[in-house]
Amino acid sequence: MLDVYAFATPNSVKVPIALEELGLPYTLHGVNVRKGEQKMPEFLRLNPNGKVPVLVDTPESGDPFVLTESAAILVYLAEKTGRLLPTSGEERARVFEQLFFHASGLSPAFGQSGFFQRFAAEPQPLAIERFAAEATRTLGVLDGVLADRPFVAGEDFTIADIAHFGWLWRRGFPNITFSDAPHVARWYETVAARPAVQRGIARVEALVPQD
Amino acid sequence: MLDVYAFATPNSVKVPIALEELGLPYTLHGVNVRKGEQKMPEFLRLNPNGKVPVLVDTPESGDPFVLTESAAILVYLAEKTGRLLPTSGEERARVFEQLFFHASGLSPAFGQSGFFQRFAAEPQPLAIERFAAEATRTLGVLDGVLADRPFVAGEDFTIADIAHFGWLWRRGFPNITFSDAPHVARWYETVAARPAVQRGIARVEALVPQD
Repeated sequence: MLDVYAFATPNSVKVPIALEELGLPYTLHGVNVRKGEQKMPEFLRLNPNGKVPVLVDTPESGDPFVLTESAAILVYLAEKTGRLLPTSGEERARVFEQLFFHASGLSPAFGQSGFFQRFAAEPQPLAIERFAAEATRTLGVLDGVLADRPFVAGEDFTIADIAHFGWLWRRGFPNITFSDAPHVARWYETVAARPAVQRGIARVEALVPQD
Repeated sequence: MLDVYAFATPNSVKVPIALEELGLPYTLHGVNVRKGEQKMPEFLRLNPNGKVPVLVDTPESGDPFVLTESAAILVYLAEKTGRLLPTSGEERARVFEQLFFHASGLSPAFGQSGFFQRFAAEPQPLAIERFAAEATRTLGVLDGVLADRPFVAGEDFTIADIAHFGWLWRRGFPNITFSDAPHVARWYETVAARPAVQRGIARVEALVPQD
């Protein structure tokens, strides 16, 4: 039995998308990060790092297995099913290269850029400039990757595409567009058109209360 | 044949440490990031993202394989040798969880905290405060992990320990100490005492010109 704790966030959406792609049934539990629920004691017992998403995999007998970090969950699900991650060769290494480029490069740049543009209590102009430039730069690096390949790690759709998709789906937060990234734009349309991707997005969007 | 392009940086040091632990011979090439050599055209042909380290694995016959992203290189080397990464089970998932917690959490917090304390052209007080708090918070999360386990992913030393070690070795940059992180302090001493770790550090430190 798979339980996912998530919200309509760039990192959360990756897990329902992967589960829909893999055809695995799961129960989705909303954690409203706009109300800070991810920092409440009950959630911190699940993830002391105070972040969504979290996966809980409960076997028929035995203890539940609790896993955090969206990309680690993607690797776990891919290896559990033997899909969306090549088992050897250059394309396997390229999947990890892109997962870590996303986690350490594009994702923090997009997140910090959006934060300093929208939420800092006082303007921090050099921080705004630094992270906006880094968000644009990392998008350009990804555009170069996609100039040579249909998907981010090679010929096939993998968990690395799911990882990058999360933040590119939420590119409005840091005010990023694809106007100078034609290869990313082409790839985004292809990924966004996948029925499983659309189902994963719909599942997390349904977690947002309508006020 | 393995070639490593690196400098005495938190991310670079991981690769020579892993190669020393695995007993693999390699040639180390210095890329002086203090002079911006990682942004020069020659290096950008190797890594368009403009970052060290880079691994080049050249087979006896065939094309060189160029791989970027320090953690992706660690996964590649572990899988090439069948060491430092459990092949299945909870400890394998914990290795990836910690690799991604490092890449997306602790590493950017330490890096940005050091940058805004030391290098911003004008003081950005809220940015300094934000990243100093996040560096301390992520160190605390790691301390909680190490309260329960000898190594970051479980009972054994893995590539996840090597990943975390890079930034904890360079904790002076963001002015971090272990005074409130006793479990990290205990773990750090254990890892730093490993002969292969000491050899890896010595190799990258020798790349720094003595002026």
